[in-house]
Amino acid sequence: MKIVVIGASGTVGRAVADELGRSDGYEIVRVGRTRGDYQVDITDTDSVAALFEKIGRANAIVSTTGSLFFGPIGKMTAADFNVGLQDKLLGQVRLALVGQHYLHDGGSITLTTGIVADEPIAQGANATAVNSGIEGFVRAAACELERGIRINAVSPTLLTESVDAFGSFFCGFETVPAARVAMAYRRSVDGIQTGRVYRVGH
Amino acid sequence: MKIVVIGASGTVGRAVADELGRSDGYEIVRVGRTRGDYQVDITDTDSVAALFEKIGRANAIVSTTGSLFFGPIGKMTAADFNVGLQDKLLGQVRLALVGQHYLHDGGSITLTTGIVADEPIAQGANATAVNSGIEGFVRAAACELERGIRINAVSPTLLTESVDAFGSFFCGFETVPAARVAMAYRRSVDGIQTGRVYRVGH
Repeated sequence: MKIVVIGASGTVGRAVADELGRSDGYEIVRVGRTRGDYQVDITDTDSVAALFEKIGRANAIVSTTGSLFFGPIGKMTAADFNVGLQDKLLGQVRLALVGQHYLHDGGSITLTTGIVADEPIAQGANATAVNSGIEGFVRAAACELERGIRINAVSPTLLTESVDAFGSFFCGFETVPAARVAMAYRRSVDGIQTGRVYRVGH
Repeated sequence: MKIVVIGASGTVGRAVADELGRSDGYEIVRVGRTRGDYQVDITDTDSVAALFEKIGRANAIVSTTGSLFFGPIGKMTAADFNVGLQDKLLGQVRLALVGQHYLHDGGSITLTTGIVADEPIAQGANATAVNSGIEGFVRAAACELERGIRINAVSPTLLTESVDAFGSFFCGFETVPAARVAMAYRRSVDGIQTGRVYRVGH
């Protein structure tokens, strides 16, 4: 069972790699922008294709990566908004569109969205739109992927580990530790569901 | 009451302009890509800014425009997927981001999404993602827009007028005439709600 974790050096990615790596026979391939076993730029189709060519066939692709734009809507420009569209949304969609062809029959794809899809926060219009778009993609792609390939998303609330960095944007939000979020990725990888958004902590 | 309808030569846009144009004192400014009182390219910030500079202050902006990519997910590329991100999603977001600064206090913005956000169809992964993204943007922007500006979206099912062109992609879907869809745009423009998605025919 070969599992490719893209974003493996991030807080969630590390927890997912640790969680899945505990299972006998699970080989975790750690991918990052600059760290890990392999590097990839998710905004570049050639880079993503080269990644999967190097790794070869896999059983699961897990993405825990992607950047968003944060800023007040009164000053936001279309170029600002495009940051999240090109990175967290299209970047993860690109991993799915390219990666589907490198998965074994019955493989799975798991993307990452977030609580801001459902619960807007100040300066977060790009985050809400991008995360909602990811959830829409997962909902539709699940109906159309072939060879028994499944696709889901995990939507965590604010991580307990991220309170110091981002807590002021999430006043009154409960947090969850990354290790608990990682369980949802395991449900997606080892389960039978498709088209699901696993909400954790909300 | 000046209402800018962008996409005014389309089936929905014409119906909206007709519906709102029936009210005494409502001035409808018809905008299209190549037709109407003014022309705009919604994928170009300079073009959108020039449009609003020419029109001046308005009370409502209604967008009934935007292109999507349709095709099977097994052959879809990231470049294909970006078509809808840049046009129907970012194009409409651009109208809102630029347009907010040209609205009178208490003005409104109404964007267009569609039933495929909720109900995926074959070859429609881009449409589901883009429409979901628009709904997310509306949900978040409504919380943050200033000066009492409201923002909503209208999500029609397949138009009765479009059955010949697109009916084969919407087997078993009920349809609604554009004139009925136009009523939802009036609810958005003349109502008091914000952050709503008005679903018509679903």
